[in-house]
Amino acid sequence: MLLVKSIDETIKIIKDNFNNYDLKTKRILLSEALNYVSAEDIISNEDVPHFNRSIVDGYAVDFNSVKLATSSTPSILKLTGEVLMGEESFIKVTPNTTIYVPTGGQLPLGANAAVMIENTEILGEEVMINKSVSINENILLKGSDICKGELIIAKQTLITPLVIGSLKAIGINEITVYEKLTSLVISTGDELVKDKADLKIGEIRDINTYTVSNHLINKNIIVKESLIINDDFEEYKSAVLKGFITSDIIFSSGGSSVGEKDYTLAILKEIGAEILVHGISIKPGKPSIVAKYNNKLFFGLPGQPTSAFFVLNTFINEIVNTIYQKDNVLPTPYFEAILDTNVHSSTGRRMYQLVNIKKENNEFIATPLFAKSGMIHSLTLANGYIIVDEFSEGYNAKSLVKVYRLGD
Amino acid sequence: MLLVKSIDETIKIIKDNFNNYDLKTKRILLSEALNYVSAEDIISNEDVPHFNRSIVDGYAVDFNSVKLATSSTPSILKLTGEVLMGEESFIKVTPNTTIYVPTGGQLPLGANAAVMIENTEILGEEVMINKSVSINENILLKGSDICKGELIIAKQTLITPLVIGSLKAIGINEITVYEKLTSLVISTGDELVKDKADLKIGEIRDINTYTVSNHLINKNIIVKESLIINDDFEEYKSAVLKGFITSDIIFSSGGSSVGEKDYTLAILKEIGAEILVHGISIKPGKPSIVAKYNNKLFFGLPGQPTSAFFVLNTFINEIVNTIYQKDNVLPTPYFEAILDTNVHSSTGRRMYQLVNIKKENNEFIATPLFAKSGMIHSLTLANGYIIVDEFSEGYNAKSLVKVYRLGD
Repeated sequence: MLLVKSIDETIKIIKDNFNNYDLKTKRILLSEALNYVSAEDIISNEDVPHFNRSIVDGYAVDFNSVKLATSSTPSILKLTGEVLMGEESFIKVTPNTTIYVPTGGQLPLGANAAVMIENTEILGEEVMINKSVSINENILLKGSDICKGELIIAKQTLITPLVIGSLKAIGINEITVYEKLTSLVISTGDELVKDKADLKIGEIRDINTYTVSNHLINKNIIVKESLIINDDFEEYKSAVLKGFITSDIIFSSGGSSVGEKDYTLAILKEIGAEILVHGISIKPGKPSIVAKYNNKLFFGLPGQPTSAFFVLNTFINEIVNTIYQKDNVLPTPYFEAILDTNVHSSTGRRMYQLVNIKKENNEFIATPLFAKSGMIHSLTLANGYIIVDEFSEGYNAKSLVKVYRLGD
Repeated sequence: MLLVKSIDETIKIIKDNFNNYDLKTKRILLSEALNYVSAEDIISNEDVPHFNRSIVDGYAVDFNSVKLATSSTPSILKLTGEVLMGEESFIKVTPNTTIYVPTGGQLPLGANAAVMIENTEILGEEVMINKSVSINENILLKGSDICKGELIIAKQTLITPLVIGSLKAIGINEITVYEKLTSLVISTGDELVKDKADLKIGEIRDINTYTVSNHLINKNIIVKESLIINDDFEEYKSAVLKGFITSDIIFSSGGSSVGEKDYTLAILKEIGAEILVHGISIKPGKPSIVAKYNNKLFFGLPGQPTSAFFVLNTFINEIVNTIYQKDNVLPTPYFEAILDTNVHSSTGRRMYQLVNIKKENNEFIATPLFAKSGMIHSLTLANGYIIVDEFSEGYNAKSLVKVYRLGD
């Protein structure tokens, strides 16, 4: 009996089974941590800012002394000095005086607000203040952005450009991150050859090791090895066993259906792997396998290149997020386009359809790339895909459809 | 007079001025070409498939001999052999016979269709065909996917995982690509220090070289050097002149406003650069500069980290696509979320607002990260942004808003 599951059931099975990976960590320079996942909570050792700071170019004041200032009845203050950028200031502001302070400059003692230069006028040694300010207006008090002891990023946070910049600002130069996930990529099939110039009748150059590996690389997963295995049970089995030692995940395309030479299931059973899913209600891509061995994930993808792409693309984000235990995950973003051809579905399976997007007269037009199974030219024209839900019969031409980018 | 431009005007200026870069190319292995842009048209030297092929597991037939087949009145054919995967077959199909053929196997001579195994039944040495097929059904004829001489990808195509797989299938192992763009990243400001443990009053650790550089790295741009320049006119000028030699683009944050120490404009004028934009109607981010020198792009970003991020993020895709002359560009994808706080705008400038997205009860909630200028904690919480248009006054709490991912 096949363990056929829906896409949502498969995702739940992945989440339930692979959320306690034995993740390795390493300590690296923060400047090299882009796109890693933090393996530690980061607490600030400092107040930010570490001194009261103006956030405008203007004049530091005691807000009480300019409370009634308007352009017709300005407050007039004596200018007693200037704060220089990057330098400590020792001059004080009094109720009758003001000091020039640049954006980012230290707020002088005695001041509790700053007036933007646009709202002032210089008259000899005096400054006319044409607008009142409230207390703390246009300034940042010490520690008001970040307090010493405050949690800045939690474990499991993705290290983005903004995170790197912010951590650098509080003096963090190293960080403990999870090592990138590693994978073994296999393509199986008697007909497959690699990098061969002249093909004999019957032979086909492998595609899936390239599409799968590069898709994984774009997802920040290291591909330790990619292998083509002509349908040889023992060779396939020993590659799988070795892969479970060297890598975190095995992706193997082909051989996961129920044909005579579809060895994948037999090998997984022989080595004692737990078969969690065999068959997913997705079109294209039904013949897929999810199995667990030594707590690690084996994903059997269909042999057909478009199917292999869609199955990988549908589950890879869930796999990565589950393994890293990231629970706050954004939905897949899309844009809208006008379909130029009918797309029908009547399978009861969620259907994925590659499309080519073109801009015409300021509208985005989606052309479905219908192709017979195994055709590859459409893959080079695809720059997006649409989804037809299990319960929908498809879309008519001229419909506005949601288009997803490849690999998002 | 300031050359203040709208975002759309700035994009047009970028497109008009930087579409004839002197791009360098290199020949590399296709397997290492992921995310490069092709600098050549690729024409197929082969037919794909290079032999007539079955796309199902089943029985090769002359469609005429099963024209009337149904499950109640099956056509009965003699089974005369089997095609093996990856091997040439020399047996022929006749009107009374059939041959087993696996998915991807060669279609035997005499056959012009294949019947799926699900629609057949074996009876000793005969096969009952329970369903008719049309001519060419379930097969791919030689060259029907790709013909010898056909254009497979055009110059300026991004090399995706699917493109690599498809090109590998037609025997392409090397490709001429444009070299990645290179950049010099500068942060200016007297107050800026780098990697310093204990800050004096007035000093601030630089953020922008890190956020800008890592944003560029995520966009496949090489950062040749990133410099912090304390406001020293001559040092800044010589760094810019050197950058125009070593890099394709210079991004410099800070110093692009109109203050006393805002040297950027003065330096660009002194070296004879053409100032194309000074001031962009974007919030945050108004004090920005776009200039041209020796046909190369200088982008002056605001000094404030959030502003620098948004200006870079708003224009970087347009810059890259313009330089590579890619004209078929996808729109930025988004997802929808429910805003939990009012967001107001009344500036007449397009406003960008960082948000934090959380999933609650199966809904995505967007919390605006309001922060005073220069605050950085919000940067670590941001995982998206929303846009308030020039002509809108904002959104009320509970509105459904479009959320864009950082860096998309």
